[in-house]
Amino acid sequence: MVTGTSPRYDYEHDGAAIYRQSFATIRAEADLAAFPADLEHVVVRMIHACGMVDLPADVEASPGLVGVARAALRAGAPVLCDARMVASGITRRRLPADNEIVCALGDEGVPELAARLGTTRSAAALELWGDRLAGAVVAVGNAPTALFHLLELLGAGAPRPAAVLGLPVGFVGAAESKRALADNPFDLPYLVVHGRRGGSAMTVAAVNAIASEAL
Amino acid sequence: MVTGTSPRYDYEHDGAAIYRQSFATIRAEADLAAFPADLEHVVVRMIHACGMVDLPADVEASPGLVGVARAALRAGAPVLCDARMVASGITRRRLPADNEIVCALGDEGVPELAARLGTTRSAAALELWGDRLAGAVVAVGNAPTALFHLLELLGAGAPRPAAVLGLPVGFVGAAESKRALADNPFDLPYLVVHGRRGGSAMTVAAVNAIASEAL
Repeated sequence: MVTGTSPRYDYEHDGAAIYRQSFATIRAEADLAAFPADLEHVVVRMIHACGMVDLPADVEASPGLVGVARAALRAGAPVLCDARMVASGITRRRLPADNEIVCALGDEGVPELAARLGTTRSAAALELWGDRLAGAVVAVGNAPTALFHLLELLGAGAPRPAAVLGLPVGFVGAAESKRALADNPFDLPYLVVHGRRGGSAMTVAAVNAIASEAL
Repeated sequence: MVTGTSPRYDYEHDGAAIYRQSFATIRAEADLAAFPADLEHVVVRMIHACGMVDLPADVEASPGLVGVARAALRAGAPVLCDARMVASGITRRRLPADNEIVCALGDEGVPELAARLGTTRSAAALELWGDRLAGAVVAVGNAPTALFHLLELLGAGAPRPAAVLGLPVGFVGAAESKRALADNPFDLPYLVVHGRRGGSAMTVAAVNAIASEAL
């Protein structure tokens, strides 16, 4: 540390070059062999968002997931999110049909609804998705309770979404809720990152990667 | 998979209990011994946001970082963010002085400014922070180029922020920019996660944890 001097920093300034180098590093270091080409592209973006090349070991998707989710977006499906950060990170201009992005967590009635249902606000907010659930792309990037509650709604006869990206993060229920999604008895197309890892950045990367070739 | 049945899911529904159990697991599994009490609280929240108990090995902060950042927030400092997801994740009601949250990345002039400066939009957007840099809390959760550019601005005589949370993520420049922040010759208080890991969720968790006891 030399106080009073102006250090010079040598780094890549070109956004396109940064992307190219990043993806080259990811493809060199990560084991992507298990994925079909369209899913591989999505997993590369997810790794890019978290900086961890060991992510693929925890990624699981139902067959044809990316195609199904992409077709839904093309058909105008809304993207239903459990967290504001997920909703805010989705790149609007990549969406093929000016798709609606919904996060009901901040809606007025949610705290009261959560108290009445005896659950978290993240789970209660799903009740406000209503009919939009039919054919939607669901992106759960934060709350395990939201993912569990989605499965309960489907068990009770709620309309089926087109695909569920289930990437809640954390220590209580995250791994279990993603296991339950992967084992769901509703033939529900899914993408999960098993275990504790997940979160809004990874979820946003998945949505944006799926959307990017749906235009 | 048993199609046609309604599975029942056994999981914790109580938000407060989920937090308690999460933090207990983190404290049981993570090695937090290196941190003073106020920083430990922040690191626990960062682990909570990413699901990884091995995070502490990569965390470094300047002495007194949390106190300095907290005092700045109490004094009304703005929070200057490099990414929209960071800005959107900060819990407004936890901020002690109705602090301004700034992300200039989407501002009109940014693409042109980036082209003129020969850098990324994330780095160019910092130019629009202007005088707000003096005494601010800076939260870089996405772009290494933003963190490098901040250090360059300071080298050129820009007013000093109160504290910099440097947690850009990725494969090109992320580790290097955080090393440069930790080695900065400006006596700039900092918090970093060394290496490739970082990102908006971790950054938001740090800001919210610092803010939570500043009220």
